[in-house]
Amino acid sequence: MKKLEEKILAEGEVLPGEVLRVGSFLNQQIDTSFSMELGKEIARLFAGEGITKIVTIEASGIAIAFAAGVALGVPIVFAKKSKSSNVAGKTYSSVIHSYTHGNTYTATLSSEYISPDDTVLIVDDFLATGEALRGLIDIVDQSGAKLVGAASAIEKCQQGGGDDLRSRGIHLESLAMIESMTDDGLIKFRR
Amino acid sequence: MKKLEEKILAEGEVLPGEVLRVGSFLNQQIDTSFSMELGKEIARLFAGEGITKIVTIEASGIAIAFAAGVALGVPIVFAKKSKSSNVAGKTYSSVIHSYTHGNTYTATLSSEYISPDDTVLIVDDFLATGEALRGLIDIVDQSGAKLVGAASAIEKCQQGGGDDLRSRGIHLESLAMIESMTDDGLIKFRR
Repeated sequence: MKKLEEKILAEGEVLPGEVLRVGSFLNQQIDTSFSMELGKEIARLFAGEGITKIVTIEASGIAIAFAAGVALGVPIVFAKKSKSSNVAGKTYSSVIHSYTHGNTYTATLSSEYISPDDTVLIVDDFLATGEALRGLIDIVDQSGAKLVGAASAIEKCQQGGGDDLRSRGIHLESLAMIESMTDDGLIKFRR
Repeated sequence: MKKLEEKILAEGEVLPGEVLRVGSFLNQQIDTSFSMELGKEIARLFAGEGITKIVTIEASGIAIAFAAGVALGVPIVFAKKSKSSNVAGKTYSSVIHSYTHGNTYTATLSSEYISPDDTVLIVDDFLATGEALRGLIDIVDQSGAKLVGAASAIEKCQQGGGDDLRSRGIHLESLAMIESMTDDGLIKFRR
């Protein structure tokens, strides 16, 4: 998506260790009208797939998943990264290692919000090593729902997670695909 | 907001300890089109106030804040509950005690996303003791931005946080105001 690439070049900031900071519009401050456009693009890419529900993970996945949910006319459900007193009863869970934050957490989703009757699209803001998506796919598999695929706003291709998921037959769409980033701020997109 | 009260009565679940579970539409699974209606109602209640930014806190505040941001045509920014490698540079922070989860955390917001030029509305999904709102008001005060007020989807009046904030002169609007809840599931709204 050309407009997202332009926004990344205009506002993104490359930090050491291949961290791309897009907090000005995607994951701390959120440009709401632009996010709605991203949501519409995700809906277009997965049109006609009979999606009934979007699954994401807190916290920065929620806004773009919500925008895609509005565009598709379906609810979203988000996995939590820690146990909450609001998550009662049976849950699905998967252990996820975050390379960005250097920690391991258990993503947890109440089983009442996803069922074998659901046709699910997974949406997240970032895709790097693919650990978060793998965990969410695991959770969708546990539920018996049908997985249509996954969408991310920004994929950092050089970290390999996206290509690995594609090679496993997952229909994965990323709205901007970064081929390489250098510490002096040069960003190259995959064509 | 009548429609929200009806939804709470139809789908809400009262758990022991005055916990209201509305995970089916507000804060784990999110009814996207209904949330957009809540966002429009918040925008209506604060129309003409010159709002430039909405401030919320992760994770369950993000969806309704986003919906209000779409309706008002402004960006949202959310405080994090833990330090992240994506939050760089100077930050504003405030210590918040959560009675629901029985813990204390530091809400943190990067100072670059809120400035004295901003006119801010705070939005969150729940208001009970008001600790989260107090923390967010503290953060907005630190930034020098102008605070217009705060909106919550559901206020649990019996926990006193809302009335305390109102008595301090905060313009606070809650879309549904719960006067009392009993462990056998009876919910009474304030009129």
